[in-house]
Amino acid sequence: MKKIKIALLGFGNVGRALAQLLLEKREVLQKRYQIDWTVVGIATGRHGSVVNPAGVDLSEALSLAVADKEISSLAPNDTDIDGVAFVRMSGADVLFENTPVNYQTGQPAIDYIATALGMGMHVITANKGPVVHAFDRLVELAQTNGVRFFHESTVMDGAPIFSLWQEVLPAAKLHSFRGVLNSTSNLILTLMEAGKSFDEALAHAQAIGIAETDPSGDIMGWDAAVKVSALVTALMGIPLTPDKVDRKGIEDISLEAVIKARDVGLRWKLICQAWREGEGVEASVGPVQIDPNDSLYNVMGTSSAVTFVSDVLGDLTITETNPGPHTTAYGLLADFIRAVR
Amino acid sequence: MKKIKIALLGFGNVGRALAQLLLEKREVLQKRYQIDWTVVGIATGRHGSVVNPAGVDLSEALSLAVADKEISSLAPNDTDIDGVAFVRMSGADVLFENTPVNYQTGQPAIDYIATALGMGMHVITANKGPVVHAFDRLVELAQTNGVRFFHESTVMDGAPIFSLWQEVLPAAKLHSFRGVLNSTSNLILTLMEAGKSFDEALAHAQAIGIAETDPSGDIMGWDAAVKVSALVTALMGIPLTPDKVDRKGIEDISLEAVIKARDVGLRWKLICQAWREGEGVEASVGPVQIDPNDSLYNVMGTSSAVTFVSDVLGDLTITETNPGPHTTAYGLLADFIRAVR
Repeated sequence: MKKIKIALLGFGNVGRALAQLLLEKREVLQKRYQIDWTVVGIATGRHGSVVNPAGVDLSEALSLAVADKEISSLAPNDTDIDGVAFVRMSGADVLFENTPVNYQTGQPAIDYIATALGMGMHVITANKGPVVHAFDRLVELAQTNGVRFFHESTVMDGAPIFSLWQEVLPAAKLHSFRGVLNSTSNLILTLMEAGKSFDEALAHAQAIGIAETDPSGDIMGWDAAVKVSALVTALMGIPLTPDKVDRKGIEDISLEAVIKARDVGLRWKLICQAWREGEGVEASVGPVQIDPNDSLYNVMGTSSAVTFVSDVLGDLTITETNPGPHTTAYGLLADFIRAVR
Repeated sequence: MKKIKIALLGFGNVGRALAQLLLEKREVLQKRYQIDWTVVGIATGRHGSVVNPAGVDLSEALSLAVADKEISSLAPNDTDIDGVAFVRMSGADVLFENTPVNYQTGQPAIDYIATALGMGMHVITANKGPVVHAFDRLVELAQTNGVRFFHESTVMDGAPIFSLWQEVLPAAKLHSFRGVLNSTSNLILTLMEAGKSFDEALAHAQAIGIAETDPSGDIMGWDAAVKVSALVTALMGIPLTPDKVDRKGIEDISLEAVIKARDVGLRWKLICQAWREGEGVEASVGPVQIDPNDSLYNVMGTSSAVTFVSDVLGDLTITETNPGPHTTAYGLLADFIRAVR
């Protein structure tokens, strides 16, 4: 049995869903993969942090955070430290980094991750920032230290995208991809097709916790552009930052335009794509009217899909429906098993 | 650099496409995976066989077979032996078993594979028969001998289905699946929707090499039932033979029925599904009218798709378009890399 010490940096919706899943799958991990885990540290954004080499009671920490209480009451000594210090103190074998995304620079998460990798910890993250702003550096740092840097949950939640190419599509060359990758904008377009105004649709997306209070990252296509950048960088081997993506959001798509398209059997989708051009790559995000024969036509609500074109397979499409924090958490768990088994 | 000795048992469309792909990807295998290969034996159905420990010229063998000539001229001594003797003589590290499928018993391929595994060879196959008729025995034999028995290309050609669950969806429990898995019947239904009669559609499927001369295995749902059995056996851990699948083919679907469905916006599909019931499983194959919101509605022509429902992800759908011997060959190559790296 491998005993793995885990540190959780970030304990919001995703971090808590991961905690829940770790508890649910404890027995399967032990029996099927001979992996046992202890949480040695948790750092939250609003409920303090705790480090304990003897182990933190994860159920108790979950209960406290859900009840909006400080988790630092669980530690022998209270800890009120920044992320880098937390990583250093934790003594973990694996860091789960799930702090809020910074689209512009990827910081401070890059520093957290680099610190952990440099200390010989595997790092698993759902944070897109470090992938698009420091991918090569972090992968190299992981290799140098004999550990893994995995980020399955950064695109399409827990659906296997990165691991698909890394593990089960060897010796393949990805020529291009095309997909619907932003849940908020797709949900808004779906609701508008049912007759809701843009503002009503956005309010609904916010009410169910899909869209942020400031939804501009989704609406203006930044989240989609970051995901395109992450896929290009990791799967095509060409570093690409979001500002290099030809980007347009759904902010100018009116209810009239959506209804007009619907009435002739078409649908507006925020289409994400990238394709090789010579030694480089072109990438775009923008609203497109697609017809019912398009493989993305039935991607509705918060669902996502991506079609890959490679030198060895016909078009291969991966579609996920009904994602949420629990599916993002599963991507993190799958990465964890992949890293330590 | 690992030097791997390969034996090819079966040299029809798939075996030849694999040979072509091995040649095309030789450099990538060397550079990216430090794998080099030598073919030490080829056994064909109609063009003799050859065994040579010093290596067989694969390009030359391909040219001979394509020109409908005997390949045994390549060997120092002609060999006219059965499959088991070929496996024994080959001295290979990896056997690619691609002989014709036997839906009823899986033989003689099971004997070929068991012989190879028993001698410590990895076995890669596109043959569904052994998977549904001897899965547990062959997997156990592989484990006992410290080798792998892989069969990615038995369902949905080279699209990653088995490897997906084995490698990148760890600790997940598959509850059910639903898909379109037989290319011939789907192509026939697609052509009938365009107004062709059943016989015209079948003739076309035969002309392009998708349907067999005796197409009853496809038309009556046996091929689909075998694929359902393979998925249930390997992914749900419940051995299931095709005769236990509640099976109906497309033989009774008339052109009138297809057109009538089309005119009200529906489509006939041969739907394959399986779901857990208590400790067991129920499985069925049969024609169903589906509507445009169904994720399988846009699976046209020879394309395939399957939606998986598990305890950890929302519905996850894998769709492949434009399959053929080259994509089946890629599944074999991917298995090969997975087995030896």
